[in-house]
Amino acid sequence: MPTIYPKTLSQTPARILFGLALRKAREEQQLSQEELAERAGLHRTYIGQVERGERNISIDNMEHLAHAVGMQLWEMLRP
Amino acid sequence: MPTIYPKTLSQTPARILFGLALRKAREEQQLSQEELAERAGLHRTYIGQVERGERNISIDNMEHLAHAVGMQLWEMLRP
Repeated sequence: MPTIYPKTLSQTPARILFGLALRKAREEQQLSQEELAERAGLHRTYIGQVERGERNISIDNMEHLAHAVGMQLWEMLRP
Repeated sequence: MPTIYPKTLSQTPARILFGLALRKAREEQQLSQEELAERAGLHRTYIGQVERGERNISIDNMEHLAHAVGMQLWEMLRP
C-alpha cells in the first residue's frame, strides 16, 4: 500500500515553528532567556538553542516552556 | 516578580493528548502499530509506549508520526 501524504501539510519543521513562537512569546512578555529558563526549570543556553531550532526538544520540556510563557503547546506549533 | 499562569491552560499532559490523538488517527486509518512504525521509521513497541503516554517523545519523532498519519502536529496536541 503506497504512503500518501496530504499536500496541505506544513513545510516548516516543527522545531522551527516552536522556536519562533517561544521567542515571540518571551519577547512580548519582556522576559530574558535567563528569566524564562528559571521559570521553566531549564538552562539559559538551552533556551537559546530551542529558540533557534537547534534542539530536538522533548514533549515534556515543550510543555514546561509553553506553561512558562502562558500558552497552550498546540498554539505554539500552528503554522 | 511572581509567576502567574492563566487558569485556562489544559490540565491534560501533552504526552497523553498526543498519544490519544495518535491512536485515534491510526485506528481510523486501520493501520496496525507495525504498519505505522514502518511508515514513520520507528519501532513498533515505541509506538505503543507513545500511544500510552509512557514516552517523553521528541519533537522530531512527533513530527514523523504526525506526517505518517497525515495530520498536522498542532492538531494532535489540541485538548
